[in-house]
Amino acid sequence: MRNDGRTPLDLRPIHIETNFVKHPEGSVLISIGDTKVICTASLEDRVPPFLRGEGKGWVTAEYSMLPRATEQRNIRESSKGKVSGRTMEIQRLIGRALRAVVDLEVMGEKTLWIDCDVIQADGGTRTASITGAFVAMVLAFDKVNQQSKFSSFPVKNYLAATSVGINKDNGIILDLNYEEDSSALVDLNVVMTGKGEYVEIQGTGEEATFSHGQLIEMLDVAKSGILSIIEAQKKALGDLSNRINSGD
Amino acid sequence: MRNDGRTPLDLRPIHIETNFVKHPEGSVLISIGDTKVICTASLEDRVPPFLRGEGKGWVTAEYSMLPRATEQRNIRESSKGKVSGRTMEIQRLIGRALRAVVDLEVMGEKTLWIDCDVIQADGGTRTASITGAFVAMVLAFDKVNQQSKFSSFPVKNYLAATSVGINKDNGIILDLNYEEDSSALVDLNVVMTGKGEYVEIQGTGEEATFSHGQLIEMLDVAKSGILSIIEAQKKALGDLSNRINSGD
Amino acid sequence: MRNDGRTPLDLRPIHIETNFVKHPEGSVLISIGDTKVICTASLEDRVPPFLRGEGKGWVTAEYSMLPRATEQRNIRESSKGKVSGRTMEIQRLIGRALRAVVDLEVMGEKTLWIDCDVIQADGGTRTASITGAFVAMVLAFDKVNQQSKFSSFPVKNYLAATSVGINKDNGIILDLNYEEDSSALVDLNVVMTGKGEYVEIQGTGEEATFSHGQLIEMLDVAKSGILSIIEAQKKALGDLSNRINSGD
Amino acid sequence: MRNDGRTPLDLRPIHIETNFVKHPEGSVLISIGDTKVICTASLEDRVPPFLRGEGKGWVTAEYSMLPRATEQRNIRESSKGKVSGRTMEIQRLIGRALRAVVDLEVMGEKTLWIDCDVIQADGGTRTASITGAFVAMVLAFDKVNQQSKFSSFPVKNYLAATSVGINKDNGIILDLNYEEDSSALVDLNVVMTGKGEYVEIQGTGEEATFSHGQLIEMLDVAKSGILSIIEAQKKALGDLSNRINSGD
Amino acid sequence: MRNDGRTPLDLRPIHIETNFVKHPEGSVLISIGDTKVICTASLEDRVPPFLRGEGKGWVTAEYSMLPRATEQRNIRESSKGKVSGRTMEIQRLIGRALRAVVDLEVMGEKTLWIDCDVIQADGGTRTASITGAFVAMVLAFDKVNQQSKFSSFPVKNYLAATSVGINKDNGIILDLNYEEDSSALVDLNVVMTGKGEYVEIQGTGEEATFSHGQLIEMLDVAKSGILSIIEAQKKALGDLSNRINSGD
Amino acid sequence: MRNDGRTPLDLRPIHIETNFVKHPEGSVLISIGDTKVICTASLEDRVPPFLRGEGKGWVTAEYSMLPRATEQRNIRESSKGKVSGRTMEIQRLIGRALRAVVDLEVMGEKTLWIDCDVIQADGGTRTASITGAFVAMVLAFDKVNQQSKFSSFPVKNYLAATSVGINKDNGIILDLNYEEDSSALVDLNVVMTGKGEYVEIQGTGEEATFSHGQLIEMLDVAKSGILSIIEAQKKALGDLSNRINSGD
Repeated sequence: MRNDGRTPLDLRPIHIETNFVKHPEGSVLISIGDTKVICTASLEDRVPPFLRGEGKGWVTAEYSMLPRATEQRNIRESSKGKVSGRTMEIQRLIGRALRAVVDLEVMGEKTLWIDCDVIQADGGTRTASITGAFVAMVLAFDKVNQQSKFSSFPVKNYLAATSVGINKDNGIILDLNYEEDSSALVDLNVVMTGKGEYVEIQGTGEEATFSHGQLIEMLDVAKSGILSIIEAQKKALGDLSNRINSGD
Repeated sequence: MRNDGRTPLDLRPIHIETNFVKHPEGSVLISIGDTKVICTASLEDRVPPFLRGEGKGWVTAEYSMLPRATEQRNIRESSKGKVSGRTMEIQRLIGRALRAVVDLEVMGEKTLWIDCDVIQADGGTRTASITGAFVAMVLAFDKVNQQSKFSSFPVKNYLAATSVGINKDNGIILDLNYEEDSSALVDLNVVMTGKGEYVEIQGTGEEATFSHGQLIEMLDVAKSGILSIIEAQKKALGDLSNRINSGD
Repeated sequence: MRNDGRTPLDLRPIHIETNFVKHPEGSVLISIGDTKVICTASLEDRVPPFLRGEGKGWVTAEYSMLPRATEQRNIRESSKGKVSGRTMEIQRLIGRALRAVVDLEVMGEKTLWIDCDVIQADGGTRTASITGAFVAMVLAFDKVNQQSKFSSFPVKNYLAATSVGINKDNGIILDLNYEEDSSALVDLNVVMTGKGEYVEIQGTGEEATFSHGQLIEMLDVAKSGILSIIEAQKKALGDLSNRINSGD
Repeated sequence: MRNDGRTPLDLRPIHIETNFVKHPEGSVLISIGDTKVICTASLEDRVPPFLRGEGKGWVTAEYSMLPRATEQRNIRESSKGKVSGRTMEIQRLIGRALRAVVDLEVMGEKTLWIDCDVIQADGGTRTASITGAFVAMVLAFDKVNQQSKFSSFPVKNYLAATSVGINKDNGIILDLNYEEDSSALVDLNVVMTGKGEYVEIQGTGEEATFSHGQLIEMLDVAKSGILSIIEAQKKALGDLSNRINSGD
Repeated sequence: MRNDGRTPLDLRPIHIETNFVKHPEGSVLISIGDTKVICTASLEDRVPPFLRGEGKGWVTAEYSMLPRATEQRNIRESSKGKVSGRTMEIQRLIGRALRAVVDLEVMGEKTLWIDCDVIQADGGTRTASITGAFVAMVLAFDKVNQQSKFSSFPVKNYLAATSVGINKDNGIILDLNYEEDSSALVDLNVVMTGKGEYVEIQGTGEEATFSHGQLIEMLDVAKSGILSIIEAQKKALGDLSNRINSGD
Repeated sequence: MRNDGRTPLDLRPIHIETNFVKHPEGSVLISIGDTKVICTASLEDRVPPFLRGEGKGWVTAEYSMLPRATEQRNIRESSKGKVSGRTMEIQRLIGRALRAVVDLEVMGEKTLWIDCDVIQADGGTRTASITGAFVAMVLAFDKVNQQSKFSSFPVKNYLAATSVGINKDNGIILDLNYEEDSSALVDLNVVMTGKGEYVEIQGTGEEATFSHGQLIEMLDVAKSGILSIIEAQKKALGDLSNRINSGD
């Protein structure tokens, strides 16, 4: 039994509330257990300098935590005057992951800005951000598509993420909460498409190492978790869930 | 009739959801019309350097907007590497306003950090922040008080804020939304206690001026608005609303 | 009697030395008691991006203190690498106040930069800055007008500022010096035109509150002070004082 | 055949010159093909604040490129005034990887600073940095050990890193150079101990995805590459290579 | 004849107004032709970290220009968020120059902060700053000495600075104004004691070179200029001028 | 005898390895005793804004030290987020010195970026940087000249630099190492052309002064040192050494 009553391979409850805020083209409030993230998707009619004139779009992400999303209050990055390495790593990951399932040519010269703001943190904020951002992105593309049709829907595939870890007491566990994450020996984040293909894997021994056998087992657990999470995304998207072209 | 159907002296609907996030000592989600702010109150067991050894506490505030709280996406201040003048003005105002109703000696050498994060903006974010922060502050002091009793409850009086403006078509109007605020000739923010005493007034002609008579009338409108808002605070606080000592 | 021998409603002596430095289009050294500020006005032939192509001008201000303008030496903001909240608040106030009496359409696509550098501080630096900047601005517009005539003189009205406060011993006092300002219960800054219309009022209880009656009385005192200060501006401007069109 | 004449599973030539600079406790110049990195290891007699009084040491890394290490000159991060996300990601990875094979308790309250400065870049700078930093670290601990003996040698295990990728023409390839890296569909960095245990794996589809079968095959190729690289480390360390305790 | 009517070896008129501002321990307004600098000297009862516990004092300087000290308005360094290379060079020079004539042991563990703020610039601002700062420093030490006597007066010698240049039309010229400085082929700044010893010489060919003979001649011209400037310092110091011990 | 066995007027051994890194148009590793600097020269096809449309080129330099180039590890300027005054002074000096021997008109609208990165420091890093940068610059112009001929070779003259100092025990000494530099009473850096003309002299008394006679003698020693260093430059350049037009 885990500290919150789950068995090792249980996910926490997932809720995805769509259109949580009114201004963005797409937005959700995603809750995975006690982790809550507001994900918004904003479309801008231009691309960064390195892409100008290429006829392609871009997807980029920013990530932040409210100061008191955590047990101890954190100093705002705007007060410190710089963005931490952890934040940069996470926002680069989110952007990269989403780009893997978007047809940038179909987008045209537009930028999709994803903003993931953690309002309550209990482990897995980066994977919750990817999972929620995917839904916000689909909503945003749908809204724009209603006004000026894309040649095809720009999202090619489902995408979600979760974490798996190894823990002294319970061995391999799925979807770590904060307390579990802090004491895990190994931490593996996996981003996967709806077809079970990898988009990103990041596995880290925390002052520890892990064997090939453990890796294979963790990847297997991650896959089953992600496929369940994608079901939650489909439910949140409702009718829209059929817009995502499964033929790649 | 105003653009959202109100008469000139109508407030927008107010909702205050207490304990909106789990980690802070006190928190609310306040909605005033379409303006929504998460206000959290965090108590830290030390004071800034200028107060060390004085036996007094401190109340300070930070304010921020999510990038897509607004119609157009704003660049994060953490990305820009600095806090704007507007943000600084607002957070200084919030802190100053709250300190006027707190007994800093009773607090002892503690700092109360108020964080106001606007998740959706439609005018009046600074006055909504003050109004919501007051409730979060009372909740935080109550929580700490349950563990280690203060000699008396540190909040001496109710406190809320609103805006009044002058507008070409409707004359004096209460509680301006974004569209009204953008076109107002005069903008007056008033912070007032539950006893009708002023804590702060800031009146500005926007490339315009205003007469003494107009000022007196606007102050009168502001007062009636604030007294209604304080009723909403009391309702949100429930039983706790009696903790605020009305004898100054 | 106040600490410098004044009665409660006395202003400190005002001196305005015009053309104090040679390069700017307009400049003054204003002394109000021991508070001394160099105010310069510089005209630039372009406007900020948000105004380009609108055919209108802009007035903006910057404010700073020399490190040893004060009793204790302050660290330079250039060394700290950022401008403080207090400085931002003051420079935004100065710019906003001046814009209220300038006809931006008549200016055309020009920016007027006001620089207020406090070389000696003894309270009231922001109100002295506004008062001095007004004179520097008139000088600058006059100089430019001699070369390429504006369709009418761009300054529509006189403008000056002062402070009023409430103090334990003397009740309501006008034009606070540093010592009085530090111990005041209430601090009210008023910016007013030559016609007695308000441009800006900012009243703050310093860990205190104030009543409606006190506010009315303070506003009355401020008005009489400002009208005297405007006489000093007229004297400094000499013949030029008639250029300011009193018919709005 | 690859663009530099290698077969898909060939490593580039590795040279590790020890004691390349005189001041640091340990230093190497590592060349992997045309990628050249100066790695230095500096021991400091104190730990970061979060570890004070814990009796444990810390290993941290910084990474930088000379401006003209690359085909196009890059602007220095000191001139830009901030460290890029890419740099932060890499330096966090290097520090984390090295900590996995160091006994921080044996180190005592010391910090080992690793500096990896790329003087010529041709792909694989982060994996070359880890590989070279490991050798510099062993040299540094040996030097300190000669003066004041550690209870046991603080490095528990060998550690090296390499990259594997998938490329349109050649399928899976080992140790990518810059041109290969730029066009790879999938990029996988692996950090592994001398016992073949994983310390870190980071696999990324670049606007692409990869299957489980491809991942398994890439991991296998990475392992054989790393074991060869560790032989080069042992040769560079000479007699010292026996100091690394193979019993974990 | 030079552009301002001087002969090649003429200095511009010098005026040194002592005690120009009231708060600092020492202050002057120095005018050399149209160049005007406020120099203040502030004594602080502690030293920078690298000197703590050494029983010695420190002298350090900061330099800045008001935005409109020059023909074109300059952006404030506080707005840019960083101090320019030119400013750093000048303030390091001023501090180093003054330290050469101060007995830091006699000072004890105090820091003398020199602030040089150029309010009007017409060439030679760095040499005017050194010359004025010297006088402000003597005033400050004298003021402190009246309260708690130093074992001897901490200033050992007079110190002043000037510039010499080579110009196409007039050959070697002394004390360059802005226009001359901009077109000079060679620019030499000399800081010298009252005994004719060098403290600092900085000679620069501006996209040009200079011969040994030219250097010797320029140094000779600089010396005669500096000795005249020291007479102006003595006159400004009045009775105090005898406090500077001429026997080193 | 000096601490490294040299007589007072001995230079340290000089080695200049050309084409040390592969990407830049020109590069060297220069060693002067234990001081080692990588100097690269990069040509860019545009000029800074202030020169656009003038038909002239520009030469600019950046200087940095690896963190452990020195006995104690230094914090990176990129981590501190700003460039120190010392670094700015040095890089401004390098750029200015090189520009004195380059025909900017012949260059055309190009910028030559010089990067001097100290990998090991033992005194004299700025003079070694100038000496090495000169060689890298000649190599870069030669490389570009092979592709698109300049009307004449843009480097007009040889250029090198060295330091001279006065030291308690040995009197005047040439080419100071770190230990000598730290304890020198006077420090003089001289930059000179191959014809013995000065480009820059910077002489500083370190809390000390120096006489005219000492200055003349130091300049004489510097000249003989620089002429020897130029021989080392010619040897490094080989056949290319004749490209530098000795007729000015």
